[in-house]
Amino acid sequence: MTEPLHPGATIGILGGGQLGRMLSVAASRLGFHCHIYEPGAAPPAGHVAARVTTAPYDDLAALRAFAQSVDVITYEFENVPTASLDALEAIRPIRPNRRALAVSQERIAEKDFLTGLGLATAPYARVTDGETLQEAIARIGTPAILKTTRLGYDGKGQARIMAPEDAAAAWAAMNGAESVLEGFIDFSHEVSVIAARGLDGSVACYDPGENVHRNGILHSTTLPARLSPSQRSDAVLIAARILNALDYVGVLGVELFVTPRGLIVNEIAPRVHNSGHWTQAGCAVDQFEQHIRAITGWPLGDGTRYADVVMENLIGADVDKIPALARDRNTQIHLYGKAEVKPGRKMGHINRVIRGLT
Amino acid sequence: MTEPLHPGATIGILGGGQLGRMLSVAASRLGFHCHIYEPGAAPPAGHVAARVTTAPYDDLAALRAFAQSVDVITYEFENVPTASLDALEAIRPIRPNRRALAVSQERIAEKDFLTGLGLATAPYARVTDGETLQEAIARIGTPAILKTTRLGYDGKGQARIMAPEDAAAAWAAMNGAESVLEGFIDFSHEVSVIAARGLDGSVACYDPGENVHRNGILHSTTLPARLSPSQRSDAVLIAARILNALDYVGVLGVELFVTPRGLIVNEIAPRVHNSGHWTQAGCAVDQFEQHIRAITGWPLGDGTRYADVVMENLIGADVDKIPALARDRNTQIHLYGKAEVKPGRKMGHINRVIRGLT
Repeated sequence: MTEPLHPGATIGILGGGQLGRMLSVAASRLGFHCHIYEPGAAPPAGHVAARVTTAPYDDLAALRAFAQSVDVITYEFENVPTASLDALEAIRPIRPNRRALAVSQERIAEKDFLTGLGLATAPYARVTDGETLQEAIARIGTPAILKTTRLGYDGKGQARIMAPEDAAAAWAAMNGAESVLEGFIDFSHEVSVIAARGLDGSVACYDPGENVHRNGILHSTTLPARLSPSQRSDAVLIAARILNALDYVGVLGVELFVTPRGLIVNEIAPRVHNSGHWTQAGCAVDQFEQHIRAITGWPLGDGTRYADVVMENLIGADVDKIPALARDRNTQIHLYGKAEVKPGRKMGHINRVIRGLT
Repeated sequence: MTEPLHPGATIGILGGGQLGRMLSVAASRLGFHCHIYEPGAAPPAGHVAARVTTAPYDDLAALRAFAQSVDVITYEFENVPTASLDALEAIRPIRPNRRALAVSQERIAEKDFLTGLGLATAPYARVTDGETLQEAIARIGTPAILKTTRLGYDGKGQARIMAPEDAAAAWAAMNGAESVLEGFIDFSHEVSVIAARGLDGSVACYDPGENVHRNGILHSTTLPARLSPSQRSDAVLIAARILNALDYVGVLGVELFVTPRGLIVNEIAPRVHNSGHWTQAGCAVDQFEQHIRAITGWPLGDGTRYADVVMENLIGADVDKIPALARDRNTQIHLYGKAEVKPGRKMGHINRVIRGLT
């Protein structure tokens, strides 16, 4: 399929969380229907989608029926099993493509890919047991951070090693899973670029945002980020190089550390990204619609920023602030329709529009 | 019910067209679920709603089951039968209230209400047969326009009377329905105010937009409208007076003619309004979310305009322009998911963001 999909076509989305929910809303603006595939009952995306399939990610029969019912397949998270992707891809295109998924599903593959492009990353080493961890510490030094190579998300499966004597406890926390030791980067702040590449190879980047994390979870993204004009260009060029190297179609999030010696790639996410939620309040076309445009073969939309914005996540009991936030001027509220409040759970976010730009 | 509804509550919407669709999307942002009640199959709002009931507006059993399943009831159009409203209101609150519906369902009641508030309207007279039409023409003069008192929408059920000899044909076009003759107003342009009133009686108005109609259907709304500062104040005060007099809860559209002798009320619509679609691109909280906030007892949101915007409707074959529009910078596309293109049918709209404001 290289012709653009027409309004009325159906987009299949793997995952029914908040990203799938906001993708479904964006797709509706362009006249597309969405079919959500999600193992969990009553997924947030299901409230605003034309159809929902409730089945596990390894149910090949359900996956095939899902693929038959849609025109293109995308996903809101990157940990779909390989055999499931094989079954889906035999029936309909998956966008972003398998290479993007393979690279971002596995931290070492990701770092090898990035350094292969000549991009700077933190120093890293593969760890498979206590001995390789000792070797890695000897080479990289401390402080460092040990992460499982797969399934990391919002700070889970990670342990800090402040000094060599922390090694044993850190390795124990990995539960025997293959891991990667990453050296600490001396960075002043983190920014992220939300970038998109269309089916025709065109690339569009949103203005980089500045991220603040708390307890390993994104707390806020502020636009504009503190970046010099040359850092801003570098950030966009890094994102474009990654998109082109992967022959990528869709929206990609690139997290970058800002250091005196330049920008260092922290990680990439082959999907719409929490740090791009500000685009809902600051651009004619937000990251969710941009992703839908890309995967349906539409021209990329205008991501020019026309306002300063601060995005803040509402985590767990932060939702108790909603009555007060609803009274705030300039504040857009986005709740995800999750029935149960849990500590650390992303319940929603707000976008504060600071001022318009001339 | 005077307590605000909590996220997770369900809003019932009578009507599954584009207004219901965009209300459902806005409700999802605040964590509410929507249940759409619509006689037609596969309504546009159904693609983005948690639940749809397909049943006629006079099916009292279906209406009662619908009311039981929701926490508050609203509507996207004003022609719901009275007996149906009685059945619904016995179970759940209807917002905006019955008085607002009664006034706007019937053109003479509307004009009597407006003139009773001291607001200017076009001269008007009730017409029930050829004789009363002759009397009305003698009093009001020509040119004038004859309209059925009920069910008028987008130019249907209307006939122009340019000279007294047009009277017989105009009356014939009414099919015997009670009608109202309205004198022509010598106006320079039309503006509309999208205004909201909360459950606590607070009022918020969006900046007035300037409307252009083609073939009796709204073509475009441009912000800012051409209005002097005092006209702008007058427009907002007129809307506020109407809202308060009706003890209104929700969003109301007020169409105003701009004349050398002041603003004249054309008509009011007790719902979100086509001429308020620009708020999706120009405000932190759009008219759809503002309506949801009002009817759920939330504080009204910030409707400050932070960009110049031109909204244009996509009518019938205008959807053929979508591929070109998708390439336009600054253009937001909103399609309604209607399967069939028909002449005069509202298929979508675009919002062009002209520039940010400081």
